[in-house]
Amino acid sequence: MKPFAVRRWLFAVLIFASSVQAAQKVDIVIRDGTIVTMAGPNIPNGGVAIDKGKIVAVGDVSQYVSTTTIDAHGNAVLPGFVNTHTHVAMVLFRGIADDRDLMDWLQHYIFPAEAKNVTAEFVKWGTRLAAAEMIQSGTTTFTDMYYFESEVAAEAKRAGLRGVVGETLIDFPAPDNKTWDAAVAYIRNFVKQWHGDPLITPALAPHSPYLVSREHLQQTRRLADELHVPILIHVSETRDELRQVAEKQNGLLPGLYLDSIGFLAHDVIAAHGVWLSPEEIRVFAQRGVGIAHCPESNEMLASGMAPVADMLRAGINVGLGTDGPAGSNNNLDMVEEMASAARLQKIKMMDPKALSARKVLEMATIGGARVLGMEQKIGTLEPGKQADVVIVNLQQAKTQPVYAVESAIVYAASGSSVITTICDGKILMRDGKVRTVDVPAAIAKAKQYRDQVVKSLQ
Amino acid sequence: MKPFAVRRWLFAVLIFASSVQAAQKVDIVIRDGTIVTMAGPNIPNGGVAIDKGKIVAVGDVSQYVSTTTIDAHGNAVLPGFVNTHTHVAMVLFRGIADDRDLMDWLQHYIFPAEAKNVTAEFVKWGTRLAAAEMIQSGTTTFTDMYYFESEVAAEAKRAGLRGVVGETLIDFPAPDNKTWDAAVAYIRNFVKQWHGDPLITPALAPHSPYLVSREHLQQTRRLADELHVPILIHVSETRDELRQVAEKQNGLLPGLYLDSIGFLAHDVIAAHGVWLSPEEIRVFAQRGVGIAHCPESNEMLASGMAPVADMLRAGINVGLGTDGPAGSNNNLDMVEEMASAARLQKIKMMDPKALSARKVLEMATIGGARVLGMEQKIGTLEPGKQADVVIVNLQQAKTQPVYAVESAIVYAASGSSVITTICDGKILMRDGKVRTVDVPAAIAKAKQYRDQVVKSLQ
Repeated sequence: MKPFAVRRWLFAVLIFASSVQAAQKVDIVIRDGTIVTMAGPNIPNGGVAIDKGKIVAVGDVSQYVSTTTIDAHGNAVLPGFVNTHTHVAMVLFRGIADDRDLMDWLQHYIFPAEAKNVTAEFVKWGTRLAAAEMIQSGTTTFTDMYYFESEVAAEAKRAGLRGVVGETLIDFPAPDNKTWDAAVAYIRNFVKQWHGDPLITPALAPHSPYLVSREHLQQTRRLADELHVPILIHVSETRDELRQVAEKQNGLLPGLYLDSIGFLAHDVIAAHGVWLSPEEIRVFAQRGVGIAHCPESNEMLASGMAPVADMLRAGINVGLGTDGPAGSNNNLDMVEEMASAARLQKIKMMDPKALSARKVLEMATIGGARVLGMEQKIGTLEPGKQADVVIVNLQQAKTQPVYAVESAIVYAASGSSVITTICDGKILMRDGKVRTVDVPAAIAKAKQYRDQVVKSLQ
Repeated sequence: MKPFAVRRWLFAVLIFASSVQAAQKVDIVIRDGTIVTMAGPNIPNGGVAIDKGKIVAVGDVSQYVSTTTIDAHGNAVLPGFVNTHTHVAMVLFRGIADDRDLMDWLQHYIFPAEAKNVTAEFVKWGTRLAAAEMIQSGTTTFTDMYYFESEVAAEAKRAGLRGVVGETLIDFPAPDNKTWDAAVAYIRNFVKQWHGDPLITPALAPHSPYLVSREHLQQTRRLADELHVPILIHVSETRDELRQVAEKQNGLLPGLYLDSIGFLAHDVIAAHGVWLSPEEIRVFAQRGVGIAHCPESNEMLASGMAPVADMLRAGINVGLGTDGPAGSNNNLDMVEEMASAARLQKIKMMDPKALSARKVLEMATIGGARVLGMEQKIGTLEPGKQADVVIVNLQQAKTQPVYAVESAIVYAASGSSVITTICDGKILMRDGKVRTVDVPAAIAKAKQYRDQVVKSLQ
């Protein structure tokens, strides 16, 4: 070997050694996808490195190695979806009574079915089935209002999902708590139990300004301030609500009424906001109230078309929600919800530019995170954030070719195009295989509950 | 053996022999599904027997045997979907320019991209990719308007799909035919070529009352009468069209203008009809004109909300269409289209009862067949009809539990829930595996075309 060749060889060895030294071992490396960070421009042929539950690198991940390497070639890698309003356990009532007037649906089906069937066990199994569905369609954070929310929290954690979990407060006997005071006691205990959990954020969920009295709403406000938990509430969903609130509250609109009693603040997540007036939009923006926009529910129940473009222009944080999967959707598919949100706003404004694929993708990720006050933690793919990451298969006949990745995800793909779901750095589904929920068992149980519910209504 | 026992044994043998004699061999037997015949009540735990391309039995199929037996346990078996309006080859432009004004989209993207890229080869590969997508989402009949339709017909046949295939007639140079007369000559040849084909129905597709002159529309009418082929046309899609037609045609609305020149008859399939007036609806009902309702396109392009409930009340046959998969949808998923149709009509009418799951399922099957004049042949599961049958997987987390099968299909499932697609008695996909299209090859070609299209627009 000539001296020069030896020097070259030595040099190569040194380079190799230094690169080996530099290689960092991490828990998961995703490689070679289109990285839709939602924090800036997309990164073609990039990766995401994940360690100890957090994102450690986005884009160039060549220095990271892992025994768990996921090839995302040709696919989109994006933040997990944030569902800002749902009632997941209601999956067990999915399709029980569709295409009916809201009051017929509530009074003749949902309320009796709930009164006769909703137990802690029912909520547990409903949440388990819903968790499977959410994982399969790329949702990593969901915001729930229902009963027995301690069960919802436990099941979310079991499935590895992030949950903002709100126990319902309502002025009539609920399936779990028969009195207001019992519900408040439940909530105090519930909040204590889940305080500081990395995945679960307990919340208060006073039903609405028409089913909770002024005094109780004010008590809820004080409780939220004391316990430092968010408030979930339905606001301005239907025209009938406007009428009911106006009758009792000196002609005030629901949003202005809530403001007049000191209820509104940045910790309030208001679902729907279909009939918000320009003045209410100004007030909500000022108070930092977040909106959970639920387009499919608003269509299904013929509630109306929310002024989303106006809300966004006013600077309100707007996220997307599927609402409950019984009668008002009927699934928990955030991909479908994005497309519906874009389409509904276009037709409302009679403007195809009213809401773009990019914008609804933002609402379903970082926008939702902002609504929940979790934007420092989740909602984008950035180093330091919790690793909530999904991979969408774009190598399908229905998604090809890809001119714009946001368009492919929103308008061509569906929830079933999600192939891998990671939450808090844990793989919940890989290549379509759910790891944290026994899906056949949950389905078998759902069938049993269906038979029970049908019998209970006869 | 005692005499009595012998007699019993002999009896059993005779029964068995007679049952074997009675057993009829057929090509395919589907067993143990919920049969949504669309010709009457659903049949739980029923089957469908298929032979020589036709349905021979529905419901009790115990007397039929086959080497191809499909277990549909827990799933829904229904007629294949009928897409009454699309431009399938446009899949190759999928997502090229969304969220834009119609004229910006057409003039700056679609028209230049078409002029520079659309060749017979382009249409062939576009149709092949679209065929894969349609088979995967349960469409067995599609209605196409585009250019080089002879290629569309050939690819549909190759994939085993039923097609009503309309060559576009338009008053400016098209990618295939540079003059009106050339297009007419092409069509005469095209119709002759496909005459009597079991899967392909050639059609005339004059673009619209605003892009085809009065004389040419009248010539098209005569040609349809002479050749006995249907006419596909866009009618009353946007308010701008109303303005354009009114300016040129003495203030007439598009539908009334078409009627005034003797254009309308039972063989006309009018896409959209968004802005049809009550008088036009009466006239369309009287003339037997069918409507291809395209809710997702009407939303995406902010065209408007079609008066579907009024059309149905007037007795018009209304089918569903996805429209083209570029900018106006962007997929060919008829399951998604059904849900969107139901939701859009509910919000238009502010009535959750405006259009039910059952009704949109009807529109997507037998309703579409009626629009195409093919209701004797397809659209329901009945003995004697052609065997266009799909199986929807209801054993998924997102579709369970099932209280009403129509609701589960329309509101909970998606196109990807279709697992088996049979057209004209031939299995095009079984258990998610497409048999008649080389999907990876079609996708690879789509990527090549994408690069070419992007370059052509630079």
